Amino acid sequence: MKLILVLGAGRSATSLIDYLIKQCSANDWKLRVGDYSLDLAKNKCNGSEVAEAFQFDINDHDQCVSEVEKADIVISMLPANYHPLVAKVCVEKGVHMLTASYVSNDMKALDEEAKKKGVFLLNECGLDPGIDHMSAMQVIDKIRGAGHKLTAFESFTGGLLAPGTDDDNPWEYKFTWNPRNVVLAGQGIVKFIQEDKFKYIPYQKLFRRTEQVHIPGYGYFEGYANRDSLKYLDVYGLRGISTIYRGTFRRPGFCRTWDIFVQLGATDDSYEMEGVSEMTHREFLNSFLSYNPHDSVELKLAHYMGLDLEGPEMHRMKWVGMFDKEPVGLDKGTPAQILEHILKKKWSLEPEDLDMIVMWHKFEYLEGDKKREIHSTLVAIGDDSVQTAMAKTVGLPVAIAAKMVLKGEIKETGVHIPIKKEIYDPILKELDELGFEMSEKQVL
Amino acid sequence: MKLILVLGAGRSATSLIDYLIKQCSANDWKLRVGDYSLDLAKNKCNGSEVAEAFQFDINDHDQCVSEVEKADIVISMLPANYHPLVAKVCVEKGVHMLTASYVSNDMKALDEEAKKKGVFLLNECGLDPGIDHMSAMQVIDKIRGAGHKLTAFESFTGGLLAPGTDDDNPWEYKFTWNPRNVVLAGQGIVKFIQEDKFKYIPYQKLFRRTEQVHIPGYGYFEGYANRDSLKYLDVYGLRGISTIYRGTFRRPGFCRTWDIFVQLGATDDSYEMEGVSEMTHREFLNSFLSYNPHDSVELKLAHYMGLDLEGPEMHRMKWVGMFDKEPVGLDKGTPAQILEHILKKKWSLEPEDLDMIVMWHKFEYLEGDKKREIHSTLVAIGDDSVQTAMAKTVGLPVAIAAKMVLKGEIKETGVHIPIKKEIYDPILKELDELGFEMSEKQVL
Repeated sequence: MKLILVLGAGRSATSLIDYLIKQCSANDWKLRVGDYSLDLAKNKCNGSEVAEAFQFDINDHDQCVSEVEKADIVISMLPANYHPLVAKVCVEKGVHMLTASYVSNDMKALDEEAKKKGVFLLNECGLDPGIDHMSAMQVIDKIRGAGHKLTAFESFTGGLLAPGTDDDNPWEYKFTWNPRNVVLAGQGIVKFIQEDKFKYIPYQKLFRRTEQVHIPGYGYFEGYANRDSLKYLDVYGLRGISTIYRGTFRRPGFCRTWDIFVQLGATDDSYEMEGVSEMTHREFLNSFLSYNPHDSVELKLAHYMGLDLEGPEMHRMKWVGMFDKEPVGLDKGTPAQILEHILKKKWSLEPEDLDMIVMWHKFEYLEGDKKREIHSTLVAIGDDSVQTAMAKTVGLPVAIAAKMVLKGEIKETGVHIPIKKEIYDPILKELDELGFEMSEKQVL
Repeated sequence: MKLILVLGAGRSATSLIDYLIKQCSANDWKLRVGDYSLDLAKNKCNGSEVAEAFQFDINDHDQCVSEVEKADIVISMLPANYHPLVAKVCVEKGVHMLTASYVSNDMKALDEEAKKKGVFLLNECGLDPGIDHMSAMQVIDKIRGAGHKLTAFESFTGGLLAPGTDDDNPWEYKFTWNPRNVVLAGQGIVKFIQEDKFKYIPYQKLFRRTEQVHIPGYGYFEGYANRDSLKYLDVYGLRGISTIYRGTFRRPGFCRTWDIFVQLGATDDSYEMEGVSEMTHREFLNSFLSYNPHDSVELKLAHYMGLDLEGPEMHRMKWVGMFDKEPVGLDKGTPAQILEHILKKKWSLEPEDLDMIVMWHKFEYLEGDKKREIHSTLVAIGDDSVQTAMAKTVGLPVAIAAKMVLKGEIKETGVHIPIKKEIYDPILKELDELGFEMSEKQVL
């Protein structure tokens, strides 16, 4: 009887575990779910007979070894920095392992050893990274397979609110994923290629250099660029392409307002602020503004950022409580930690809130010398604030991959991401059957 | 016969060595000057009978030990990161050591051992840090000694061009100090206190939040804030002060134009650009601008930054050659390295150019409940492009301190900066005699 080990039972593991429970029942497999919180693990197992919850501490090396060596496959949904720890044990014990996270250098370093041991280490098999790779490669391989020349690839993904959810929220946004990552998003340099020119955008301009995209049926989105699009030149085999650009979707107006936080320095995570325990939201904001005892914080902010005092950006700032004389409620923190804490007060999903995932790729290519263009779109909407579109689209691809490995349908070894046809085709097909369909449109 | 060892004979060592040669002649001491370039060391010794030049390699530990153990005092003018290496050897061998650089953590860690061995390690004894500490502490000690309450301390230093030098240069600036440090200046977070409020300025706003200061006889300067003014609360014993702010002077208009580089991301030192060997100045600039085949780089830049196409900022950018189709002339580089290389073409001192140092402190205090204010100003102008005001004001304080140590006029041990009256009073007095006078003015 095969055993699947899932480590980490957080928000992103819900749909993953549900799917695996069904597979275990159908195939006479067993599932063990470990989390630091036994209650959380139990809750996710939901009384199933094929699943067993246990308390798991990643810092207990002996426990990790004894759990891994019992298993036929391990799925790590732990925070990404722990994956290499688990992966090392998996390689030692000859057990396959899957994650939904980016391949780190530590993970990459295990490639040779994993191959020797016949171990498959699949990473980046969630939504973004994950479905983005698979759905892009499927179209890219098709275009190239037909002998056409790909000239441009643009790709955006966003975790947003479903239309109609929380509709007085002028940001049209709440946290549906790790809030800390949302607050820190975009720090560092952005690189891409446009019309054969290398282009660079620093953090301080990132949220002002957005692109507008219209998706029929879902309206307008604005995209800001992700960090290093150039690395996909090699990952996707696109050297020589004229344009490559990857980005993140928000609803229009979000980025211009988020840029206020960037300009203020309110997303800085490099130092601890003074006097946090006594600080109000309003004082947090004011600490980034010049001293002037005669003007209000509102006026100083609007003037500093060149905003209309009654405009949409100021409205969003007011709505999210930035000017409130309410205590932050932390004893200490960096600007980024304090901002996250303030935003969570308004940006946490309510039980009735529905989230939405939007992924959109644009492919331009030459058929002979004729310009052609394909758009490929995935839209997914959550069932509720637990069965979110985010949890499903992150968890299901890795769950499907696990099933395929156990059934012998993937026979790779070493460190991989899902860009091979043998891997992405069956996963995308099953996602489609589960209702997550990439709709493809020939635009030109 | 006492022996002074100077390590590093670069730009900042010129006046230092000249002064020490005079002292050696007067006191029957000897001087050894070591540099990686023997020619440079010889050139600085200028044929003096009391001075000997030698080839020195800081990576040759044995050489370092054998040179240090012969000496009675060591002055390190090497790049700052090498000071702790030298200091360790000095502590081991019981030899005093002086630098003009900030105390690093590695240096600080030597305090206890240095005290045990009776070794004096004086740092931050140049211009800034150096004369700034000494001249500020002299006034602060005087105000406090009289029983008054210091309420505000602001301090600015700038290395600039003397009036009339290179007078068609619209930046009124050239590199008179380490160009790399000028390009990277201000990265990280700025912290200060204004009217009892902690204030923070991120890099992306730093060059837009300037203060104007007028210095009679020398005109207007604009100051941008230095990194962490808060650390001077403890260094100067100023806990409880209402305002503390330290900054750097430039001529008016410089900062608004420098901010263009900051906003573009052209001062980023964190990644290597693509295609540098083929890149022109104009292409360097264009790589930070959006793609648009119909508009000129000039128009795109002016529009992006909200500048008049014929305004002073665009004029400065043109003057310094940013739009030129001239090859950069590097094989590879980060944006900051490339920018430095381009700027050096116009911003290097010509033989006839004179530099200028301006230091300005403002002290506000209460005499009873009466508000009082003192301004203290130092202006120094170079003799030529070798005997610069910068080289003198950096080198002379450390040279004077060396003389005092050898004459037994300083008897401290451990790691110090020149904030004690016994150290700063005689150094400031001798600087005054040498023509570097802090002029003090009671404004209120």
